[in-house]
Amino acid sequence: MSNRQTRSKISLRVMHGDSIAIGPGKADLLEGIRDTGSIAAAGRAMQMSYKRAWLLVDTMNACFKEPLVLTSKGGASRGGAELTALGEDVLKRFRAMQKTVEASVECEMDALVDLLAD
Amino acid sequence: MSNRQTRSKISLRVMHGDSIAIGPGKADLLEGIRDTGSIAAAGRAMQMSYKRAWLLVDTMNACFKEPLVLTSKGGASRGGAELTALGEDVLKRFRAMQKTVEASVECEMDALVDLLAD
Repeated sequence: MSNRQTRSKISLRVMHGDSIAIGPGKADLLEGIRDTGSIAAAGRAMQMSYKRAWLLVDTMNACFKEPLVLTSKGGASRGGAELTALGEDVLKRFRAMQKTVEASVECEMDALVDLLAD
Repeated sequence: MSNRQTRSKISLRVMHGDSIAIGPGKADLLEGIRDTGSIAAAGRAMQMSYKRAWLLVDTMNACFKEPLVLTSKGGASRGGAELTALGEDVLKRFRAMQKTVEASVECEMDALVDLLAD
C-alpha cells in the first residue's frame, strides 16, 4: 500500500436523524472505554477532552434504545465506565460493517485515490 | 420502509488526511453547482452561507490533483461556477460508491436500525 493510500480512507457513519449514532471516532471511544474502564482515560488516549468524550457517549446513549455505556459514580478518578451488552453488540456490528464496506468499494476507492492530490 | 428507517442512514465520506475530500454534503453541493452554475445559489439551496459553500469547494479543490469546480470572476452575482471534467467524474464515482456501500450492508443496517431509539 502506498503512502498516499494509507493517508486516504473510507469513513462510515450511521446517522440517526441529525445525530451520528456511531462512526469511527465513537467506535474507537467505545473500545477505549471497554479497555480502560474509564471515559476520561479513553478520551485522553484519543487526545480528547473529558467533556468531549462524555458528549460523544451521551449522544450514543441517546441514539440507541438502551445505553451503550454505563457509568458508576464516585472515586477520585470520576468513577468507572463499562460497555453494556448492547454496547458490545453495536461495536461488533459497526466494525463488521466497516470491513464489509471497505471490501465492497476497494477497487472504486483505489481509482478515486489516484485522483487525489499527493 | 418504516419512518425509523427513513430517518437513519449510512453516511460515507472519503478522507484525505484530516480533510473530507468528498462526502454527502460536498456531493450535494457539486450537484447544485452543476445545476445552478453558481456556488452561492447551490449553497443557498442547502441553507448554507456563501462562505461555508466556498470553503467546502476550496477543500475539495485542494484535495484533488486538479480543481473540481472552476469559478469565473465578475458580475453582480459574484460570478459563475462550473464543474470541471474531474468534478463530474469524482461526483459520478462517489454516487456509485454510495450505492455500492448501501447495498453491501443493507441487511446489517436494517438490524442496526432495530437497535436505535424511536
